[in-house]
Amino acid sequence: MHDAALVLFSGGQDSTTCLAWALERFERVETIGFDYGQRHAVELECRPHVLALLRERFPRWAARLGDDHMVDLAVLGQISDTALTSTRAITLAQSGLPNTFVPGRNILFMTFAAAIATRRELPVLVGGMCETDYSGYPDCRDDSLKALQVALNLGMGQRFNFEMPLMWLDKCQTWALAHQLGGTALIDLILEQTHTCYLGVRSQRHAWGYGCGSCPACTLRARGYTAWLASAA
Amino acid sequence: MHDAALVLFSGGQDSTTCLAWALERFERVETIGFDYGQRHAVELECRPHVLALLRERFPRWAARLGDDHMVDLAVLGQISDTALTSTRAITLAQSGLPNTFVPGRNILFMTFAAAIATRRELPVLVGGMCETDYSGYPDCRDDSLKALQVALNLGMGQRFNFEMPLMWLDKCQTWALAHQLGGTALIDLILEQTHTCYLGVRSQRHAWGYGCGSCPACTLRARGYTAWLASAA
Repeated sequence: MHDAALVLFSGGQDSTTCLAWALERFERVETIGFDYGQRHAVELECRPHVLALLRERFPRWAARLGDDHMVDLAVLGQISDTALTSTRAITLAQSGLPNTFVPGRNILFMTFAAAIATRRELPVLVGGMCETDYSGYPDCRDDSLKALQVALNLGMGQRFNFEMPLMWLDKCQTWALAHQLGGTALIDLILEQTHTCYLGVRSQRHAWGYGCGSCPACTLRARGYTAWLASAA
Repeated sequence: MHDAALVLFSGGQDSTTCLAWALERFERVETIGFDYGQRHAVELECRPHVLALLRERFPRWAARLGDDHMVDLAVLGQISDTALTSTRAITLAQSGLPNTFVPGRNILFMTFAAAIATRRELPVLVGGMCETDYSGYPDCRDDSLKALQVALNLGMGQRFNFEMPLMWLDKCQTWALAHQLGGTALIDLILEQTHTCYLGVRSQRHAWGYGCGSCPACTLRARGYTAWLASAA
């Protein structure tokens, strides 16, 4: 029964690795993305290129890769604006989270994904949430997502299975997983086509890909890549 | 600590009763509504009238009733449209649910409400979900909502308390609760100002309020009102 999956696919390194992971396992794979006015919107522009190149360069996956669903969640920005009147919102902003940060954003993403997956008859939801490198976001935690699986299944009368293949991996292990799934062809595709940098910088090319090189996301990606190269040597 | 609440307020009988319930209990009460292209959009037009009349006719509540938040969830219609390509969606449509029906809609409402409540520092979320008369929607069930409380609290790092004062009441008992909270003044306000009819009919006035008189929502409202009148006599 569990032969089809919906992958939360942002166009970044993690979700591209998750997509490859799903394409290895499931007969039918669809993707979903969210446009919520994220600062790193360049990520969304990467999505169609990644999808096209996966089809072109991995014939065994091409037949399995189905529809891509884009959901307009501009409303998240609206909620953030509403919030800026309260003390708590200002505290959050000072902590360095982007203006469009909404508490429990991943809960919303999984719930919208489940709504689409119900209609498309996709019993598995795959997300790249990870405790190891992102402990600041409680909605990325394993406990949170397993509790959400139960709540969504009860509330929708469904039996979705959440798969989070990166949950316990660090960034080095995520690069290793990509290599295991798709060899150097997938590593090259991730380096060239995926986007991770929070600031949306695409003008600077490093060994580990494009980005400003100094934001937290770039730092994690670079450190993981270097560690993986060293371990693979 | 639990002195402030956010009430999911649609402008219908149930959520107006919940709002009165919250105004009796909490020092500070705010409201949230969702515009998702519902067929009974006339409900949304009732909202400001109900809020204004509550302030005008119940001085003890006026000082407690704070901001109203409207969230644009047109995206729910977008998701429904996406769905119409699948077999399951057509089955759902044939079952008589509106086109804009999204599985787990109340999960989304509670999650958006929690996001707003985080910013506004409102630790209690009040919703009019009810098992007794709406068993068709699994996201109205007590189990679903209690599981969701746990999932949201884990995912947001919060300690929200969901209150669902109508969960185990039938419509007769909901009328009785309104009377207990606000006497005949609240009953009159509910009869004149709130909207329940799925078809959005406002042209026909019955003893129990406005509506087509024959859709499931009107039937429930009318039957409950008649039963309550009989029991109160």
